[in-house]
This record gives sequence, C-alpha cells and structure tokens, in this order.
Amino acid sequence: MKWEVVEITKPSEDINVIIGYTHFIKSAEDIYEALVNSVPGIKFGFAFCEASGERLVRYEGTDEELVRYAIENAKRIGAGHSFVILLRNAYPINVLPALKSTVEVTRILTATANPLQVIVVETEQGRGIVGVVDGLTPVGVEEEKHRKERKEFLRKIGYKL
Amino acid sequence: MKWEVVEITKPSEDINVIIGYTHFIKSAEDIYEALVNSVPGIKFGFAFCEASGERLVRYEGTDEELVRYAIENAKRIGAGHSFVILLRNAYPINVLPALKSTVEVTRILTATANPLQVIVVETEQGRGIVGVVDGLTPVGVEEEKHRKERKEFLRKIGYKL
Amino acid sequence: MKWEVVEITKPSEDINVIIGYTHFIKSAEDIYEALVNSVPGIKFGFAFCEASGERLVRYEGTDEELVRYAIENAKRIGAGHSFVILLRNAYPINVLPALKSTVEVTRILTATANPLQVIVVETEQGRGIVGVVDGLTPVGVEEEKHRKERKEFLRKIGYKL
Amino acid sequence: MKWEVVEITKPSEDINVIIGYTHFIKSAEDIYEALVNSVPGIKFGFAFCEASGERLVRYEGTDEELVRYAIENAKRIGAGHSFVILLRNAYPINVLPALKSTVEVTRILTATANPLQVIVVETEQGRGIVGVVDGLTPVGVEEEKHRKERKEFLRKIGYKL
Amino acid sequence: MKWEVVEITKPSEDINVIIGYTHFIKSAEDIYEALVNSVPGIKFGFAFCEASGERLVRYEGTDEELVRYAIENAKRIGAGHSFVILLRNAYPINVLPALKSTVEVTRILTATANPLQVIVVETEQGRGIVGVVDGLTPVGVEEEKHRKERKEFLRKIGYKL
Amino acid sequence: MKWEVVEITKPSEDINVIIGYTHFIKSAEDIYEALVNSVPGIKFGFAFCEASGERLVRYEGTDEELVRYAIENAKRIGAGHSFVILLRNAYPINVLPALKSTVEVTRILTATANPLQVIVVETEQGRGIVGVVDGLTPVGVEEEKHRKERKEFLRKIGYKL
Repeated sequence: MKWEVVEITKPSEDINVIIGYTHFIKSAEDIYEALVNSVPGIKFGFAFCEASGERLVRYEGTDEELVRYAIENAKRIGAGHSFVILLRNAYPINVLPALKSTVEVTRILTATANPLQVIVVETEQGRGIVGVVDGLTPVGVEEEKHRKERKEFLRKIGYKL
Repeated sequence: MKWEVVEITKPSEDINVIIGYTHFIKSAEDIYEALVNSVPGIKFGFAFCEASGERLVRYEGTDEELVRYAIENAKRIGAGHSFVILLRNAYPINVLPALKSTVEVTRILTATANPLQVIVVETEQGRGIVGVVDGLTPVGVEEEKHRKERKEFLRKIGYKL
Repeated sequence: MKWEVVEITKPSEDINVIIGYTHFIKSAEDIYEALVNSVPGIKFGFAFCEASGERLVRYEGTDEELVRYAIENAKRIGAGHSFVILLRNAYPINVLPALKSTVEVTRILTATANPLQVIVVETEQGRGIVGVVDGLTPVGVEEEKHRKERKEFLRKIGYKL
Repeated sequence: MKWEVVEITKPSEDINVIIGYTHFIKSAEDIYEALVNSVPGIKFGFAFCEASGERLVRYEGTDEELVRYAIENAKRIGAGHSFVILLRNAYPINVLPALKSTVEVTRILTATANPLQVIVVETEQGRGIVGVVDGLTPVGVEEEKHRKERKEFLRKIGYKL
Repeated sequence: MKWEVVEITKPSEDINVIIGYTHFIKSAEDIYEALVNSVPGIKFGFAFCEASGERLVRYEGTDEELVRYAIENAKRIGAGHSFVILLRNAYPINVLPALKSTVEVTRILTATANPLQVIVVETEQGRGIVGVVDGLTPVGVEEEKHRKERKEFLRKIGYKL
Repeated sequence: MKWEVVEITKPSEDINVIIGYTHFIKSAEDIYEALVNSVPGIKFGFAFCEASGERLVRYEGTDEELVRYAIENAKRIGAGHSFVILLRNAYPINVLPALKSTVEVTRILTATANPLQVIVVETEQGRGIVGVVDGLTPVGVEEEKHRKERKEFLRKIGYKL
C-alpha cells in the first residue's frame, strides 16, 4: 500500500474543479445531461475512470480544452470509478444539486477553484482517492469586521438580499 | 495509527456492494425500508457497525445469504457507523437515490460489482474507512469507436433512447 | 505527506457533531439558514475553514459556547473547506436532510455523539480530512434478543409505530 | 358534478395546517415517521382518506386533540387519498422537506396558519380537492419601507443574518 | 369555461396510474429514463400532451399495451403539458421519487390503482386539469382493531419490520 | 363561489413563466436565492400574494421589467400564497429543482413559455388557483417520423448525446 499526491492541473486559475465517485458507464451521459440541464450554454469537461471491462477513461463535455484537462487529471488520479469535472462559465453551486442527485453518483469529494491536491492510495489491485487538500490552511479566526465584510460582499455580488 | 486493506467478499461475482456511513440504530429499519420501497421483491443483505452502547453489528435483509455476507464484511471493516449492503436482483442506480436521502445516511463511499478493497485506518480508539479501491486502474482513453459502442450499448440494454 | 489524528472536543458528552466539506464563503449563511429552518429554536455552533483569500475560520451559530467549540475544532483540523457543527437541542436526523441539500455542501463525513477522531493528511500545500474514527469497534453480532430490544427501543422513544 | 367549500377547523388560530395527497395505507406510518424525524418532540395530528378497501379515515399523531381535528377535517373533505396535518409546536418549513420527499406523497396543496377553505368537487364516484383559498386576497403592493421592514423582521426572528 | 369528467381507462384493474404535469418535449426521454432507472425490467406506458408547435401526444414506454392506453387517456384529457403513466409490474412508490425529481416535472396530481376520474376545465384557449377523484369517499374512521390490522398487514407484506 | 380565467401577460412571447404556491414572507428572499444560485446572471421577476397581516404583493428580482410583470400577474390572480416568476435568460429546467426544494414552496402549478391562463376560484373569503390552461390542446398523436425528429432535435440543441 502506497500513497501519492496528485496535483490537479487547469488551463487557468479561475476554473472550478469537482471531483467525485460515480459508477456505471451510463454516468458519462447522465452527468453530461445533469450539467447541460443546470446552466444554459455551460462549458465543461468531464472524465471518469471505468474500473472494469475495457477500463478506459470515458469523457464528455462542451469545451474541448476542459475535456482534455479532465481526461489528463482523471488518468493521473487513476482511481476506478472516480470522476473529474472542470467548469468554465459556471460555478459549483449551479451544478452540485444536479450532480448530487444524479443516480449513479455516490459521492462528491470536492468542488473548488483553489489549488487542489488529490490524495491517492495504491494497492496491488488498483487505486482509490482518500481525500483532497483543497487550498491552504486557515491562518486565523474572523473578527467582527471580517464578518461584516463577508456579509456585505455576498450582498454586493447579489447572492443575498 | 495503522492501515489495513479489507477485501470485500461476495457469494458471486455479479453481486453489487454499497458501502457507506450512517449513524443511529434506527438505520437498520430505515435502510431496510428505503430498499424495499425502491424495487419490488428486492433481495439484499444489510449490516452496520454500532459504535457505542452494546457495539453490535446490526443487520436486516430479505436474503439470508446476503445478510450473512454483509455481516461478515461489516465485521472485518469494523469501522464505527459504517455499513455494507449486498444486492442480488437490483442495481445500485435503483436504490442509491433512496439511500442518499435516508435521513441517517451521512455518505456513500462506493457502489460497485467490481472487486472491492476498503482502506481502513486504525487508532487506539477504533477504526475508520478512508477510501476504497473499486476495480482496477484505467489502461487508456476511449476513442471515437469506444464512445460509439458505449452509446449503442446503453441503448441496446434500454437505459437510453 | 504526514498524518495526524485530531480529537474532537465538546462541552459535554451528549452534544452531536457533524463534520463535512463545503465550499464558498456563502456557506456560513446558508448553513446557518439550513439549520434554523430545520428545528425551531435550534442551538448550534458552526465553523469552517476558508481555503483562500483571507483564509479565516468563518463561523455562525445560535449558541456561544458551541460556536467557540466549533471554531476550536475547525482550527485544529485546519483542512481547507472543511466544516464542523455542534448541536445541542437537536439530533443529526433533524438537520442532515437540509445540510445534504445545501447547495455548497459537497459531503458529510460524519454525524455522531460518540468520541470522534478526525484523520488528517498534511502536505506542503495544506491539510485534508481522509476519514473519521467514530466511536468504537463492534464487539459482536446482534442476536434475536438484541434485535427485538432494538425494535422495542425505537418504538418506546416514538420513532417507529 | 357539484362543488363544495369545506372550512378547515382548528383548536386555535396559531395551528398550522398542511393539506395534500398521498396514496397507499403505508402513508400513515411513513408520514408519522417523516414528522417525528424532523423536529424533536413534535406535536401533530395526521389523517387521510383511504380510497378503496375498507375506506376508513386512517390516522396517527402525537397530540390527541390535533389528531381529532385532523380526522374531522379529513372526513369533511372526504376526498380519496387526501390528507390533513395539524402542527402545534413546529412550522411547515420544518417538515415540508420531509413530507415532499415521503415516497407516497404525490402533492402538497397548502401549508398555512391562515383561515383555510378547501374547494372540493363531487362526482357520482367520489370527491376530489381542486384547490384551496388560503387566507385573504392582497390589498396592495409592498413599497420600499415594507420591503425594508420585511427584511428586518426576518433578521429579528433569526431566519436570516 | 366548461367542465368535464374524464374517466381513466386501464387494461386491467391492478394497473397503477400516475397523472401529472411536465413541460418541454425532452420529458418523453427524461421520464422514460427516470422509470427505467427505478426498477429493473419495468413495464410502463407514458404519454404527454405537447402544448405548442406540432401539438402531438408524445409517448414512450416498454409495454405496447400500456403505451396505447397512456396515449388514449392523454388524448381524452387533452390538457396541454399534462402526462399519464400506466405501470404494470411496479408500484408508484418505486417511481415517485424519480418522477418528483425529474427536472421538467412540475407536479404530480395522483398515483393510484383505484377507479380514477380527472376533472378538466375547458376554455376557448385549451384545457387544464383541476383535480382528480381518486377512488371512493371514506365511510368511517378506523378503530383500534383496524389500526392493528393495518400495521400487521404492512409487516406481513414486508414494507415494515 | 365564482370562477375567473386570468390571462398571464408577459413582455415578450419567449419569456418563461412559473406559477406556484409558497407560504411565509421569507419566500421572497428564499426564492430569490434559489434562482440566483441556479444560473449565473439570471434575469427574473418574482412576486407573491401575502395572505394575512399587511396582505401585500411581495416581490424581488434582478430585472425591473420582469418584476413589474410578476407583480401585475400576481395582483390579477390575487390568490393568497400564490406566486409568479418570469424568467428571461434561463429555462424552467435550470431552476425547477431549486424551486421544488425551497423549504416554503408547497407546489408548482406550471412552468411554460406558452400562452397561459390561470383558473381562479373566488369565495367570500378570498381566491385560490385551481389549475392552469397551458398552451393549446393536442391535435394528434406522434408517428415514427415525429418521434425521430423529436430525438434529433434534442441532440441538435445539445440536451442529449
């Protein structure tokens, strides 16, 4: 049993990444549909690691570059039934509800635009994701002024009234 | 802190296994009900590791053999609040929506008919699942012909039109 | 890459703890709302680890002591985008459905009143949760009398008819 | 085909009422469980109109008076597969998510503490609900000061931050 | 404005019928998928009334006779965006969760094996469903012995433990 | 008891309208949030009929013209606790999952870009929606060529693969 830290790569910093587990080859179409149902004109790449049979990285998407990155990251993770999504013009909150209720999806590990490391375990049989390092460690606790700024920020960008 | 790889055993290769976490002894009845609500005549075995009090492996099911295997696997995993389901005449996609919305279920680790290893951490206090190795590692990326076959296959077995 | 076992601390034994991952600073308000929507007069503390920008532990709650413990536990876990909730007068089953469907929440690791250890991985970049040790390991398998007691217990406390 | 306006009666004005449709005699237990799962110590009465077989008003609950009122209202509505819930120490928002996802529930017509009329159609076969009159008709449109008061009110009672 | 009572017809008494509203021509495939995802080998017919463009009754299914009946009932209802499902070897509780979460489905009016009348309003523009008469009106209130029988019955057929 | 047919008005034909019932003044903010969470930069107007207290049409939105139309339509419907949404740059499928799971929303009556009539009942107490006429009545049943065209159309616009 050995461990590996896989660094997720993206075409640009602002791209959001979602990593999870699904099962069944039908996921390629179902996750495609979940995403296009969520946001009009969504640009994304999706790839997942088929874990038996032909054992291919399966993919779909609406943005060639993001599909390429999704495949590349899925290959480097190499964990059976894991998947990688990259989003260009949409945010995780727009698509997470649809992904969480996609019938084959078993779990979502992370959704983030931060630097992302995937912690992988490898046995003689294969590989599995055990967790992620999503961004950096906190450096302090918010004080009243940060709390106020946080609320104002959300209202300024229109998420809260 | 030490690590262990627990190999999941099944009465036959085609049996699907679902592994997750739940909490509260009520899960035994609630997960039983979630499964019988999902598919008429479903055959399954369920077991989970009670983590306090009497600390027993609790179980329910509609198929004696699958219950026995579920218990056996749950015992070998030995992680407080983890559960194991084995399904005979149903597929994970038939039951995952009901399981994900069962009130006590906190997460689903995996759903698969592949060879399955559960990665367990052990501390002085007890044990926990950190991940799974579900099937094997991919050996390549699908090409256009695989993509076409994948779509045809799903239409042939009736999942897509 | 190194490992750490973080012991979760609580003001009293009966407090329930929920640990998970969310993303986006909006979680502080959205999880607050999810909890107050679920149970009238709910007493809780919530904290999560902002993983970029100001990198502060963000918090909300309706019970000062529980907020303090939530912050303290979140700091010691120190995993970007992880969160900690402590509940006083409510049970996880009252709030898990709302938490699971909160748009930013990616996963729930555990919900428990048992002694709880969080297994954390640390890389040069930061920290991540890989699993939990929730309570203790089972010591046996339930027999018919335990099964009968289990059902009677749930009916006595009014969860089943 | 004739129409009837059924006035819903309650033991006191502040009681919330939920009216909907479910199917299957199992609803009595499943809706009971959905409600007790939602709020600790919840006080409610539930009744629904069995539409075939013995054709009885079936009921469950945790508050004798509310059960009596639920039965009485269900009888007067008399629409096959309709149900009535009265809530004492909980609000509709605490229980609607659980009710909407109860497997047998097909629709929720209303949830309100206002004076409530149920519009019933009667044919030679039986009766059906076609709608509700929930409270009164609006008398104007909010202006900026009402909008401000509305937001302040929600923050004062703790639903928003 | 005039009213019509449409009697739902079925090939045999035990067939379950679900009636609701959806929107968008994509519903034909999405509801097909929701049903085949729910129960292995499910036999059903589905039809819905396209409300603009070519204004055709659209249909899908896995059982020719049930599709024929679904079309016939949808035509007689004739309400734009309404749909009819007939189920042979499955129960509404197996499929309602998937239908309720199908993205285009706006509401479910009823799910029942009882004699079913659909109350339709007709204006100069078109037709709409205002309600259903599902089975018959109740004839009494259950007593303790009925309640006991009800619980025993559910346990005998395996829905509760 | 009298009936009224309310014609929904829109600034242009392609605008989608969603009509439903919610309860509680908090809906104004919660539905606003549900919509902005669903689609980046969404343009909508929302209004609902407060049914007690000040009895005002409450509103929120991100598009002044759509807000105005939402208010106007809500006023003319005048049914306590009913709401109206108009969407400009988004489709009902993008927002229905979020609306259906908004805690106060009890039901969705319709979602459509077709000509829309709302059937309202009026009693001495107030008004209620009993149904909608959504578009026109079907004129035939699809044949094989229509079915083929339907599937090709969905694939051409990218909703299916």
